[in-house]
Amino acid sequence: MNRLFHLPLSPFSRKIRIVLGEKKVSGVDLVEERPWERRMDFLLLSPAGQVPVLQLNGTTLSDSTAIFEYLEETIPEPRLLPRDPAQRAEARRLAAWFDIKFQREVTENLLQERVNKKLMKSGYPDGARIRAGSANIKYHLDYMGWLLERRHWLAGEALTIADISAAAHLSCLDYINDVDWGRNAAVKDWYARIKSRPSFRPLLNDTVPGFTVPSHYANLDF
Amino acid sequence: MNRLFHLPLSPFSRKIRIVLGEKKVSGVDLVEERPWERRMDFLLLSPAGQVPVLQLNGTTLSDSTAIFEYLEETIPEPRLLPRDPAQRAEARRLAAWFDIKFQREVTENLLQERVNKKLMKSGYPDGARIRAGSANIKYHLDYMGWLLERRHWLAGEALTIADISAAAHLSCLDYINDVDWGRNAAVKDWYARIKSRPSFRPLLNDTVPGFTVPSHYANLDF
Ligand SMILES: N[C@@H](CCC(=O)N[C@@H](CS)C(=O)NCC(=O)O)C(=O)O
Ligand SMILES: N[C@@H](CCC(=O)N[C@@H](CS)C(=O)NCC(=O)O)C(=O)O
Repeated sequence: MNRLFHLPLSPFSRKIRIVLGEKKVSGVDLVEERPWERRMDFLLLSPAGQVPVLQLNGTTLSDSTAIFEYLEETIPEPRLLPRDPAQRAEARRLAAWFDIKFQREVTENLLQERVNKKLMKSGYPDGARIRAGSANIKYHLDYMGWLLERRHWLAGEALTIADISAAAHLSCLDYINDVDWGRNAAVKDWYARIKSRPSFRPLLNDTVPGFTVPSHYANLDF
Repeated sequence: MNRLFHLPLSPFSRKIRIVLGEKKVSGVDLVEERPWERRMDFLLLSPAGQVPVLQLNGTTLSDSTAIFEYLEETIPEPRLLPRDPAQRAEARRLAAWFDIKFQREVTENLLQERVNKKLMKSGYPDGARIRAGSANIKYHLDYMGWLLERRHWLAGEALTIADISAAAHLSCLDYINDVDWGRNAAVKDWYARIKSRPSFRPLLNDTVPGFTVPSHYANLDF
């Protein structure tokens, strides 16, 4: 049985859902896993105790970058990395930018404080971290804007894993209304393009009890 | 001109130095870069403002995982990833384990507090973080031991990027005497094997003013 253990507002899980969608892998059941419950059967699959974990044709995979590279190697079309090694490096650099730097400077501060603490019932949001996340996201949107004024997609002329990582993070933050789409027209235009892809649509229908999405969230003309 | 902008006690820089050594890339000048000085010429090369940055034959690369994949693609021999996609995923999962999880739970707590704060002159070590790092490393050494009792190298029967990432972190921590090599014999044996590789030797000769290395640090029979 093919399964993806995921969380609806986990950017790393969303990244893999979009990759599976782009590569038209169907028949993968989504299983919601709350990693903080530390369920023994889940820890046996994933020693890091984190989502996403993908079980595909008998192989169990974890870490979203390792999962992505596996899917890119075994299901090459459509390509989510360019052919040229230097351009591949650029796409991977930017994917890591979102997965590590943006995650730490923005996503963790906002999502952890506003959503995870509530779901985990582990205390009140820390205002200082929310302010840090809100300040940091501006600088990241500006950098994205700078790139997108020069390139059609973040890493060049074609959609790559860099766009998918970035959109996975931003879509989680948009769910809690933490993205100022008025800041940069090129970023807004880029996000509208990503949002309208069939691979992205299912994510926009996820709901998390206790959180009301802003009206523009699933709207293609936001 | 081929250059690697690095820091002697940066695990990500060490990882790339070992990869260059394994792949026998010579003629790369090491340039020490203190990222916290935010030198403009460096920021133009690396928008993230982090080391390592590799300039090779006119291409500028950053993010150690993107650099590694580029080197693996352009200089395939000797391979640092297995051929089989599932085994490649296992090596990448473990490399990410050290680069992200171990980095956050161990390296950052210990290295940041004991070394970087002193170099950056940014205050006194935080005892709580040092205690957290010292507690967390035990659980990581146990996990490595568990793997190494079943496999010759961390990700299987051959040396991979997983071993290189792990050894890059542990060698920085060993410099400040934060690794208890008595904890697990399989881990100690594995580290002795890595340490004796020609690619690893140059790292062991680095010195950082103000820090005295433990006597076993560069010793192959420690
Ligand atoms: N490097 C991992 C990170 C995954 C990750 O951080 N997952 C979060 C949810 S977004 C998680 O499961 N956190 C629970 C925990 O770390 O205990 C990846 O890329 O898959
Ligand atoms: N994801 C990056 C991380 C590199 C990194 O964290 N480098 C540290 C030194 S070990 C650094 O330059 N820190 C300075 C900063 O973040 O401002 C990589 O793998 O290369």
